[in-house]
Amino acid sequence: MSIKIGLLGFGTVASGMPFLLKENKDKITAASGTKLEIAKVLVKDDDEKKRLLAAGNDFNFVTNVDDILSDDNIAIVVELMGRIEPAKTFITKALEAGKHVVSANKDLIAMHGKELIRLAQDKGVAFYYEAAVAGGIPILRTLANSLTSDKVTRILGVLNGTSNFMMTKMVDEGWTYEAALKKAQELGYAESDPTNDVEGIDAAYKAVILSQFGFGMTIDFDQVVHQGISSITPDDVAMAQQLGYVIKLVGSVEETPSGIFAEVSPTFLPKSHPLASVNDVMNAVFVESIGIGESMYYGPGAGQKPTATSVVADVIRIARRIKDGNVGKRFNEFIRETKIAHPDDVKSHYYFAINTADEKGKMLCLAEIFNSEDISFEQVLQQKANGEQARVVIITHSVSKSQLVNVTEKLQAVADFKLLNTFKVLGE
Amino acid sequence: MSIKIGLLGFGTVASGMPFLLKENKDKITAASGTKLEIAKVLVKDDDEKKRLLAAGNDFNFVTNVDDILSDDNIAIVVELMGRIEPAKTFITKALEAGKHVVSANKDLIAMHGKELIRLAQDKGVAFYYEAAVAGGIPILRTLANSLTSDKVTRILGVLNGTSNFMMTKMVDEGWTYEAALKKAQELGYAESDPTNDVEGIDAAYKAVILSQFGFGMTIDFDQVVHQGISSITPDDVAMAQQLGYVIKLVGSVEETPSGIFAEVSPTFLPKSHPLASVNDVMNAVFVESIGIGESMYYGPGAGQKPTATSVVADVIRIARRIKDGNVGKRFNEFIRETKIAHPDDVKSHYYFAINTADEKGKMLCLAEIFNSEDISFEQVLQQKANGEQARVVIITHSVSKSQLVNVTEKLQAVADFKLLNTFKVLGE
Repeated sequence: MSIKIGLLGFGTVASGMPFLLKENKDKITAASGTKLEIAKVLVKDDDEKKRLLAAGNDFNFVTNVDDILSDDNIAIVVELMGRIEPAKTFITKALEAGKHVVSANKDLIAMHGKELIRLAQDKGVAFYYEAAVAGGIPILRTLANSLTSDKVTRILGVLNGTSNFMMTKMVDEGWTYEAALKKAQELGYAESDPTNDVEGIDAAYKAVILSQFGFGMTIDFDQVVHQGISSITPDDVAMAQQLGYVIKLVGSVEETPSGIFAEVSPTFLPKSHPLASVNDVMNAVFVESIGIGESMYYGPGAGQKPTATSVVADVIRIARRIKDGNVGKRFNEFIRETKIAHPDDVKSHYYFAINTADEKGKMLCLAEIFNSEDISFEQVLQQKANGEQARVVIITHSVSKSQLVNVTEKLQAVADFKLLNTFKVLGE
Repeated sequence: MSIKIGLLGFGTVASGMPFLLKENKDKITAASGTKLEIAKVLVKDDDEKKRLLAAGNDFNFVTNVDDILSDDNIAIVVELMGRIEPAKTFITKALEAGKHVVSANKDLIAMHGKELIRLAQDKGVAFYYEAAVAGGIPILRTLANSLTSDKVTRILGVLNGTSNFMMTKMVDEGWTYEAALKKAQELGYAESDPTNDVEGIDAAYKAVILSQFGFGMTIDFDQVVHQGISSITPDDVAMAQQLGYVIKLVGSVEETPSGIFAEVSPTFLPKSHPLASVNDVMNAVFVESIGIGESMYYGPGAGQKPTATSVVADVIRIARRIKDGNVGKRFNEFIRETKIAHPDDVKSHYYFAINTADEKGKMLCLAEIFNSEDISFEQVLQQKANGEQARVVIITHSVSKSQLVNVTEKLQAVADFKLLNTFKVLGE
């Protein structure tokens, strides 16, 4: 007997699946307890190019999703189309038809995961999506299976390969944001509209999913604050280096006394921090917890084979659970009431870059503003900027989100100061 | 209903278990599907000190293992005594009594795992040991559950915290081996007899277990070649740095066309390699595979809470499988016929440090010896050593174990050359 799979989509990742299933057949069959077989592949057009890609395989291309949904021989549907629609409709129909579903669609799961998970539960079928976060890194299953004994206090992740590639160029080679983006587009890492990658939206989708597995709470996408890398200047990068830091786009989810807080933002990482040496398109998830303490999971965040490997691991797990008779289990069984942190409880060190007239008394005035919000300095650097301007760079001690809002408003209200940038700083 | 646990030993790790079970009670109970309860703890002497440690807990100390083995209410036995005996006898008896067993005992599992695993299978009980490799890092479960879809080609690991702490001092601060060892002993990282840690024996135990999970093959401990860090000199460290490398004690298991090969040896890692920045007592396992490509799992390799976290994760998994009715499953289900690699197939770049009389023709003679074994140079550095001696440092291109043996013999046969050290070099 074999378990038959219906593939929705035959793009980069999907076309990597036949490779893995063939190349690693014995191990996969043994682990599944049965043969896995791709039976049908949904494509828009059943054209020559796809036939070439599929050469040597036994599956059929279909152009109507019903050919898969109504096929009683297909037990598992793998959705690799991306975007919200028609993926959402197809997954919904597949779950309704009693099929188990594997997806790598982070946008969809972050935006509509709740209802799809509920539907899967109602139907007693599996809905797994390891590949949706950090592609090849098995972070979701690790959080669900191994860190069950532990209590996670914070997750920090370099979750977007495109922006990390760009930040690596900006940090290691002093490139501007614009030059780094151009290179990323030339190499096919960034799309012509790079918004999702560079503005932290893609990483925010992943933070939503990580909050479920790490903290048992389902935060909404809209509740994830996100700030991208487009405002980072070579001056910021140089300042970071001088002060002992590397800037990266970091997604973070943490639990405070009042609840969890998730955000994606450029972050100053101490050079010795394990995330600081995660370069190029690689991803990593750094977990802080009361038991293990600090652990990190590093690997490719995207790409055909890494993503297909995670997808096939999900398929194997479903096949095995079908055999073991416990396939209805949720991918993530850790569920608590969702509570969002109060801004007073969310604290971090911060970097402020401020331009000011190079006149007597400006530093005093600046110190007074920070002091009025009870914010103290950890490092201060004043440099001659161009002309009559001086640049002041401040790394603060711990500051709450409430304090941050207040001090930012006060700084913006003083005409003499120009607040260039504010970024999070990870304390040592 | 609750599941009752019998603890064998109440040392550092064991006394961390009540903390985790209490601190993380809700999550652990939900994941287990039942309450977990330590019922009895086996100790040598039921003394006052232990009573203090155990204050506030409900379990009883016992001094006779039979009080646990014959207690039908105890379903899971957790062995945290270490060493071979009496741990082996106790685990054997526990399995024979139909109890599930969790152990963190790498020595025992590396030396006698095969028979214990077989016994567990015969009895239809679970025998799990996540904590035996790299303490807090969930590497075994990750290999068993997530990399099932992948084919591992090589595993490289910084697997021993004590020696890595020492290497970090030797590399970052230029300490001698002796100074680093003294410090490690002062801090309690190294025992008064540090052999197991510094000679690569402890790491070799872990390589045995990793070979099972990564490659499905059970290599014997005696088949793991191990070389320690005691022969590494400040000169070697300085040379490595000059050539772009960091030296660490690395355990490696790789598959060649003829079979697998495992060894533990000081290894030159390119500075940009993710393992190169794993410092102090931290461990990491770097996995190369056909699907994911490169992934790394980083965390504490020892310590009370990290190790207890891995142990409790195993206990949760067993509790859950008892509930799901599939508790007899092996921890590692990936099994192939064990084949050991032929020395011709095991290849690496190498570092040679050689002293020679500072006379004409010596470099020519050296080049002829390497050339006679078909070994070519990647980097060569000649320096004035003390007095009439010159030091030659060579990084070779790929060399097989057979070539390595031959060239070493030839070098040792020439009275003019003194072969100071030979270490593996990881190619970029």
